[in-house]
Amino acid sequence: MDLSDLADRVKKGERRALARAITLIESRRDDHRADALALQDALGDTDRSALRIGLSGTPGVGKSTFIEAFGLMLTGQGLRVAVLAVDPSSARSGGSILGDKTRMERLSRDPNAFIRPSPSQSQLGGVARRTREAVALCEAAGFDVVLIETVGVGQSETMVAEMSDLFVLLMAPAGGDELQGVKRGIMEIADMILVNKADGELKSTATRTCADYSGALRLLRKRPQDPEGFPKAMAVSAVSEDGLQTAWEEMTALADWRKESGHWESRRAAQARHWFEEELRHALLAQLSRDDATKTLVQTLGEEVAEGAIAPGKAAGQVLAHLGKSG
Amino acid sequence: MDLSDLADRVKKGERRALARAITLIESRRDDHRADALALQDALGDTDRSALRIGLSGTPGVGKSTFIEAFGLMLTGQGLRVAVLAVDPSSARSGGSILGDKTRMERLSRDPNAFIRPSPSQSQLGGVARRTREAVALCEAAGFDVVLIETVGVGQSETMVAEMSDLFVLLMAPAGGDELQGVKRGIMEIADMILVNKADGELKSTATRTCADYSGALRLLRKRPQDPEGFPKAMAVSAVSEDGLQTAWEEMTALADWRKESGHWESRRAAQARHWFEEELRHALLAQLSRDDATKTLVQTLGEEVAEGAIAPGKAAGQVLAHLGKSG
Repeated sequence: MDLSDLADRVKKGERRALARAITLIESRRDDHRADALALQDALGDTDRSALRIGLSGTPGVGKSTFIEAFGLMLTGQGLRVAVLAVDPSSARSGGSILGDKTRMERLSRDPNAFIRPSPSQSQLGGVARRTREAVALCEAAGFDVVLIETVGVGQSETMVAEMSDLFVLLMAPAGGDELQGVKRGIMEIADMILVNKADGELKSTATRTCADYSGALRLLRKRPQDPEGFPKAMAVSAVSEDGLQTAWEEMTALADWRKESGHWESRRAAQARHWFEEELRHALLAQLSRDDATKTLVQTLGEEVAEGAIAPGKAAGQVLAHLGKSG
Repeated sequence: MDLSDLADRVKKGERRALARAITLIESRRDDHRADALALQDALGDTDRSALRIGLSGTPGVGKSTFIEAFGLMLTGQGLRVAVLAVDPSSARSGGSILGDKTRMERLSRDPNAFIRPSPSQSQLGGVARRTREAVALCEAAGFDVVLIETVGVGQSETMVAEMSDLFVLLMAPAGGDELQGVKRGIMEIADMILVNKADGELKSTATRTCADYSGALRLLRKRPQDPEGFPKAMAVSAVSEDGLQTAWEEMTALADWRKESGHWESRRAAQARHWFEEELRHALLAQLSRDDATKTLVQTLGEEVAEGAIAPGKAAGQVLAHLGKSG
């Protein structure tokens, strides 16, 4: 594979080249991994910077409809939009049943949009590490906005927030009692809460829910990375497209404020450090499965430890000694 | 240091030798670590097995008073009792303000008791790894019961449960509303809930609280490791010593049932595997701080990553290459 040619085509914004580059970084083959790192080298520092928006919402909240309407609005304004997914279920099942493209048919046909389903890796950490690299590729390909969507369960939201400039929570209109169910940790990482389905019968419920969230957000301690009025709750409708433009204006206003105040840059620096540590941790643990001899040793010692024939600390020491010798 | 002499004296149950052995395993010096592993080798497989009881309770619940009364009752019956602590605050502050011995004066003077405060390590994981090895030393020293106490916050309870045969939760008498505050995860690892302070004015409240917990425990899914009637809630008084003997009988009955049914052995095997994995993970990550050259490389690359001069994945690869070369 001619990596410098691939890098050039990615930089020109060719969607097929971008797709191929992402496939390369998602591969678990050692030679592909080396190529992926070489590709990142060949891309170099393009000085291109997208607005990375993390978006979470539980199933049924209308996430696909929202992303399609929001994405089409942005492409309509001449912006290029990439949509990536971090799907915890792909870590278990090896991929969603329905591809993301089926979900967002109109957006996927738009030449200024690029949609990529979640990488299927065996662990959520692997999904997140590869998605973070895909974000950087989309940025190098000149996309203006990268939407990173995830389902509102477990650890995936924190991981998506760790690769986003802004984190948006999409919620459904709900009764006051249900507000309790929103995990405090998620409220604390959200920059904006969008209450979707503010249309038709649900409009007044959505408005009320939005007011409830606004109240709840005001109770949170003010974070240094927020200007006056943030985090913010707003009602939107993906179906009638009401509020989408306003939501976009709020997002860019927040991004601009953070850029001016220096929070943007320090957040990206902290995130890069975080991913360095994650890659390092992963690479160190991966030593345990680097060859059959090591795997067999770990397996055998694990059984001896379980039988009480050897102490856990001593067994660990033997594995390390083996890695040192055969490294 | 003559390690085989130290091992012999530990096996004879000498408390000073045991204290010295634990100091050795808690040390972070590399040569001490090698000695600690050699000591564990010298002790070999003694075939001695204590009942390892994990005990958690928030401050104010009367944990020290309970342990002292419970421990003295057991030593009064001719049993030898060791008390170890896993204190998450020692991971931050480098030790509790008051030593555990001050808290349990009578028990600490009892020749059949051994009390050891929490190791002061920089991370809770380190505290837990060393405490687990101290449990094994107490067992080799012929103690019949090892109580591993922790404060009811954060991760420390899960870690203590991972080194215990039974896990006991000590609670204060409380109104019905406060029951909600008990984290579901803790209820799920508890084998027994003891409602303390069932004496004087609080006696009826304690009895009611105990009934509430019994009801809550019945709602949990039955676990294979439990005989009929477990997990169980009981009211006790550490001050009047009411219920302590019954609690002990329930604990031994549960232990006997688990031994007969095979759950005891499989739990210990699973725990040993868990600690092997923990030791392995720790040892792998410790490679990053094994010498100044490595520390400097990680530091420098971390700064370059933060500045965007190098991609996180590539920087991690450089650290691994360095470890391989100089290993």
